[in-house]
Order: sequence, then C-alpha cells, then structure tokens
Amino acid sequence: MATEFDTGLPSIRQVQTFIRDQNTVEIKLLTGDVFTGIVVWQDIHAICLSIEGETLLAMRAALAYIKIAN
Amino acid sequence: MATEFDTGLPSIRQVQTFIRDQNTVEIKLLTGDVFTGIVVWQDIHAICLSIEGETLLAMRAALAYIKIAN
Amino acid sequence: MATEFDTGLPSIRQVQTFIRDQNTVEIKLLTGDVFTGIVVWQDIHAICLSIEGETLLAMRAALAYIKIAN
Amino acid sequence: MATEFDTGLPSIRQVQTFIRDQNTVEIKLLTGDVFTGIVVWQDIHAICLSIEGETLLAMRAALAYIKIAN
Amino acid sequence: MATEFDTGLPSIRQVQTFIRDQNTVEIKLLTGDVFTGIVVWQDIHAICLSIEGETLLAMRAALAYIKIAN
Amino acid sequence: MATEFDTGLPSIRQVQTFIRDQNTVEIKLLTGDVFTGIVVWQDIHAICLSIEGETLLAMRAALAYIKIAN
Repeated sequence: MATEFDTGLPSIRQVQTFIRDQNTVEIKLLTGDVFTGIVVWQDIHAICLSIEGETLLAMRAALAYIKIAN
Repeated sequence: MATEFDTGLPSIRQVQTFIRDQNTVEIKLLTGDVFTGIVVWQDIHAICLSIEGETLLAMRAALAYIKIAN
Repeated sequence: MATEFDTGLPSIRQVQTFIRDQNTVEIKLLTGDVFTGIVVWQDIHAICLSIEGETLLAMRAALAYIKIAN
Repeated sequence: MATEFDTGLPSIRQVQTFIRDQNTVEIKLLTGDVFTGIVVWQDIHAICLSIEGETLLAMRAALAYIKIAN
Repeated sequence: MATEFDTGLPSIRQVQTFIRDQNTVEIKLLTGDVFTGIVVWQDIHAICLSIEGETLLAMRAALAYIKIAN
Repeated sequence: MATEFDTGLPSIRQVQTFIRDQNTVEIKLLTGDVFTGIVVWQDIHAICLSIEGETLLAMRAALAYIKIAN
C-alpha cells in the first residue's frame, strides 16, 4: 500500500488542503517525536514541515499520524 | 503484501463496514498510541479517524491493529 | 518480499490450516502486544482474529510471529 | 530490496543450508524476541522454526538477524 | 511510496541542496540515534554522512527525519 | 526506495569496498543491537557479517546504519 503518489487520493488531498490553508499540523513519527508546524510540501518520500522557521523533512515511512494541531 | 488497494479484499471491506455502520473503532499504532473514533474514509496510505470532532490521519504503515471499540 | 499473496506459499497455507482446523493461535505484533484467538480469515493486508467473540484486524506489516497457542 | 524470492540469492541459499544441515539457529525479531530452533522451511513472507516441537512462523519483515546458535 | 528515486522530487532535490551547500544536517534514525554531519551523497537505499571525518551510511528505511542542524 | 539491487549504486558499491578491503565495520540494527565484523557478502535481503568466526545474516530491512568501526 505504499508505492503510489496519486494526488487524487484522499490522504494526499488532505495534506494538500493543510498546505493551502496553512494549517498548523501535528505529526508524530515512529521514533515518538512529535512536531508541530506548517506543511510546506509533500512528495512520495517525505512531508516537509516549517517549524518556527526551520525546515524538517519527515520521512513518510516513519510517519505515524498527522492531524491539525489543537 | 502491501501495494494493493483492492476494495474486494476482506480487510478493506471490513473497514468499509466500519465506515458504513459508523462503528466506534480502536486502532493502535506502532508508536503505542491507541485512538478511538469513527472511521471517515480509508485509502491506500491512511485511515482517517474522527475523534471527538478532530480528524486524524493514521498511516497504514504505522498501523498495528484495528477493532471495534469495547 | 512483501507484495505477493500466493495461496500456494507455505506461510499462507499454514495460516489456512489454522483457519480450517480452528486452532487457537498466538500472534505477537511489533508493538509487543500478544493476542490469542482463532484466525477467521487472512488477506494480503491483515489477519483477522476472533478473540473471545471480538474481531481484531492485525496488520501483516506489524506482525512479528504467529504460532499455535500453548 | 524486499520483493524477490530468488533461490539463487546468497541469503536464501544460506537459510536453505541451515534447513538441509538441520542447524540450530538463533533469530532475533524487531520485537526483541530471540528464538532458537531448527528452520523447517522459508518462503517469501516467513521463516518457519521448530522450537522444541512447536512451530513458529517468524515474519521476514520483522526479522533482524539469523545466525547459527552458539 | 518508497520505490522511486526521481531526482526531480522535492525531497531528493532538498538533500541534493544540502550536499551542494555543504550544510551541516541532523538526521534521526528509528533507533533514536541522532547524527550531525555533512551529506556526501544519497542514493535509493542510503544517505551517506561525513561526521568528523568518519563516513556513515544511514539507511533510508531507518530514517525518521533530516534537517539543517541548529 | 527499496526494491533495487543495482551494483552501480553508491551504497552497494560502498559495501563492496568494505568487502574487498576487509574493513571491520559496525552495523546497528533497529533492535538496537550493534555488531562489529567483516562483511562477507551482501545481497538484496541481507548483509552477511563474520564476527569472530561466527556468521550473522543481518537483514537489510532491519539495518539502521553501517560504518567503518573505530
């Protein structure tokens, strides 16, 4: 379930909506790290977060969840 | 065993049944996090849960199990 | 090694045997969770266990081992 | 690097040698579990170990290492 | 989402930029290890870091995030 | 990013160099285990280490990093 990057898929579109709306999102990685920031872009391998001016490439393979931050 | 999203597969149909019946489900992620909510949709990459009005995209690659909540 | 669901494979047939014989099996997930139950079905993504009347979809990607319960 | 089961590959042949020679092997899974037994068969998804008469299907995706037991 | 190494992808280009600019980056692996160094090259399987003169091949499958070091 | 075993790739060639030069390498697995030894061979699924006369098949899917030992 992990080799397609189809921009019509709900999960891809949802993240595109986060980008467009500049939502502050929370992601959690399999390491247990939680990051809060703005999604700058996504591609098949990573989600790029802007966190207080820093840029973090979070690997999709290590991503547990993403949601709008409280 | 992870590149097909065939809506005829039992595991996909089971989750579709959860969606249709609005079952409250429990999912556990590889991080150890347990979430309880309603499945809104699924696609090849994620299962979207509504948890007390919040939307969480749980990545399939990080999913350990899903079951109807007690 | 993870994209085929060939019912002729020993690992798939072994689980089919567990289903047919209604064996009580023990599975362990990468989360460390151990579940004991009857396998109801398997597909490419999941193994469905019946555990004291509850149904649990254990994701194959999160599966560490399966064996007949002691 | 994970979708081929080519019996000419060194890693597959090594395990075949363990089977033929009835070596007692030690495997460690990503859960941290260590099992010692005889390899009965391997396929693309699993390695089947006989451990004091019990049969355990260890999932390849969860396998960290395999070696001849001390 | 993990079988393409397309140098036009943002995540691949971002790492190429780190290489070209000789940025000191921080990577975190799923083991929890954090390394700080200069990216020497990347390919489909690994990111090669130079860390105080030592060379480390960090496996992409084990990579949680990469960012410019503070 | 994980289904190719192309001997022209830098990461594959780097390990071939370790083999040719009989470098003592250190590998770390996702279990947290660290092993130090000589690489005997590599294939698409595993890296074979000789560790004080013992042979260990370390699974690539469980490999976090590899480097020349200090």
